[in-house]
Amino acid sequence: MGTEGKVIKCKAAVAWEAGKPLSIEEVEVAPPKAHEVRIKLAASGVCHSDWSYLYEADKMSPRPFPLVLGHEGAGVVESVGPGVTKVSKGDKVIPLLLAQCGQCERCLSPKTNLCTKNWVQTRQCLLADGTSRITCRNQQVHQFIGISTFSEYTVVPEDNVTKIHPDAPLDKVCLLGCGVSTGYGAAVNTGKVEAGSTCAVFGLGAVGLAAIMGCKSADAKRIIGIDINPDKFEFAKTFGATEFVNPKDHSKPIQEVLRELTNGGVDFALECVGNVAVVRAALEACSPAGGVCVMVGWTPKGELSLVSEDILLGKTLKGSYFGGWKSAEAVPKLVEDYINGRLLLDEFVTHTLTLDQVNEAFDLMVSGKSIRSVLKM
Amino acid sequence: MGTEGKVIKCKAAVAWEAGKPLSIEEVEVAPPKAHEVRIKLAASGVCHSDWSYLYEADKMSPRPFPLVLGHEGAGVVESVGPGVTKVSKGDKVIPLLLAQCGQCERCLSPKTNLCTKNWVQTRQCLLADGTSRITCRNQQVHQFIGISTFSEYTVVPEDNVTKIHPDAPLDKVCLLGCGVSTGYGAAVNTGKVEAGSTCAVFGLGAVGLAAIMGCKSADAKRIIGIDINPDKFEFAKTFGATEFVNPKDHSKPIQEVLRELTNGGVDFALECVGNVAVVRAALEACSPAGGVCVMVGWTPKGELSLVSEDILLGKTLKGSYFGGWKSAEAVPKLVEDYINGRLLLDEFVTHTLTLDQVNEAFDLMVSGKSIRSVLKM
Repeated sequence: MGTEGKVIKCKAAVAWEAGKPLSIEEVEVAPPKAHEVRIKLAASGVCHSDWSYLYEADKMSPRPFPLVLGHEGAGVVESVGPGVTKVSKGDKVIPLLLAQCGQCERCLSPKTNLCTKNWVQTRQCLLADGTSRITCRNQQVHQFIGISTFSEYTVVPEDNVTKIHPDAPLDKVCLLGCGVSTGYGAAVNTGKVEAGSTCAVFGLGAVGLAAIMGCKSADAKRIIGIDINPDKFEFAKTFGATEFVNPKDHSKPIQEVLRELTNGGVDFALECVGNVAVVRAALEACSPAGGVCVMVGWTPKGELSLVSEDILLGKTLKGSYFGGWKSAEAVPKLVEDYINGRLLLDEFVTHTLTLDQVNEAFDLMVSGKSIRSVLKM
Repeated sequence: MGTEGKVIKCKAAVAWEAGKPLSIEEVEVAPPKAHEVRIKLAASGVCHSDWSYLYEADKMSPRPFPLVLGHEGAGVVESVGPGVTKVSKGDKVIPLLLAQCGQCERCLSPKTNLCTKNWVQTRQCLLADGTSRITCRNQQVHQFIGISTFSEYTVVPEDNVTKIHPDAPLDKVCLLGCGVSTGYGAAVNTGKVEAGSTCAVFGLGAVGLAAIMGCKSADAKRIIGIDINPDKFEFAKTFGATEFVNPKDHSKPIQEVLRELTNGGVDFALECVGNVAVVRAALEACSPAGGVCVMVGWTPKGELSLVSEDILLGKTLKGSYFGGWKSAEAVPKLVEDYINGRLLLDEFVTHTLTLDQVNEAFDLMVSGKSIRSVLKM
């Protein structure tokens, strides 16, 4: 009963401005308001887009500072605000960067997972009422995508959290809050990868490796992993890759190399880098006979340029947010798939660090030494 | 028995060089070689891409001159070469700009209609053996996409022709050789337009009107026709359009106008102009909730530029050649649909001219005065 209804003082990594390392600070986390949930975070993955919003702000949609980053977390409900029915104190939960209210037009459509609930506010790094629950040095601190998992505690709207299996190890299933769900879903939901098909996955970070796992679960025959860092190839094999291409080993453009390797082009190409030039290469690597290119890597402000004939003759270019999953119902199922051995998660975690080491986690990621670092709170 | 096995002298419209009007000439059409069919053409539609290859050669894949254009024809088999089994003398037929051999990997795939048979040669405006059957003034004349319907006679490979119902009026069903099949199929096969959906069709030429007809046959609820020429709006109504927007009536970009009209965006956008800027507008007019943009207008060399977030959040961009139809089996069925009143064709034909008037037909098209001109041979 100690903390309920009270402001909690705890540690968080605060981004005071773009381009500067995160600063470990004492912050105040206010109690949850109506339809809000306060979570004691146990762990958070460090995702490339956390880094990008800090260090590549020009390529991303603008985010306000100060800001607590982190959006791939798992924890336990510390308390709930009035009116909350979906989770209870003590539940293990994963915060959701995308709501699933279950009632809006989009939640009722099988064609999209882009629930409109809290969308505008969370993109502005605020909660549903247009404020945040975190303050530091008497300033309101924004909550990245309405979440903020680089903190010991956070508050999120009830529609932006989902209850998971009580046996779930939080320092693993946190990865289902973003990267693994995104890559895996891009293959199985968005690309609808087919049995017997030939796939190419560009970029072998966590998202790309999860996409490979999705291709494998769909019984793809050939899964070609592509990365300029050959250290990633062994990881890729673990997740199901059957072949590897390092673009640096070839003088020809990678799309030509792949077309030659695959008798004219791959059936499915998944771009998991977030680079518009790679998207073009991925599309050009697709078979003219109905090849599908899925954009997965997060590059929202990119200006993508294509030769129109590529599409005109019958290729498809598509994308998805959060792997196309309807978030609140899918994440608990993915957690169970992991518990039941149908989904790999442990293999993504190359480094386990503490919140204090978040900048180190960024360094490991940018230098290609980690797949995923998980911060334990 | 008069002409079989002999060279036929007849009239054709010859393109001697890019940018110059077609010249009505006497040409020699050689007898069909093995697996070839000589056709006495009855009629040919005049398609925008005939004009484009002549007058906008810089925007198109290169074509050799001299050349007999025309690829939307219908006629009667005059004679067949050795080994032909698919059609016989006297059959009513439509030449096919895309083969369907029925045996190649792509013909066996449900995902594509891009049969590889004769593809390379016909793109070079030659028949399967790398030559043409038409000469004029002692020069070999190339056959546009292996067809050449601006001629009283032509010879095509057996796999590039299909037998149609004997009651079919050739001066109407010729339109199924390209434009109507392309637009109609783009809606029903490629876009897979859904019942109750909201559609936008950009460009109300024959292809766009056929796309509207496809949206209507799929029971779309709202079908918005878009053109800068308001004279097209009455035609569009005939084919099923429920609303019209003239971009010139608005100071805002057309995509904004459409998003406002449709509560955030259309479910299906079909670009039937062949302009990369319009493709971008069409994609941007789509609903973020799974909107599908289909590229139909023929602009193979266009460099298409998109904001990557549009795709990343869940829209789809796709295209198809010849409306995604498996040509040889689909065209006869479309002819029967017309005969049985399930498909409009007469309403596309605004002008019926003679072969001599082909340049006039181009003028009518470019000035927006015609939907389709049909040349009777």
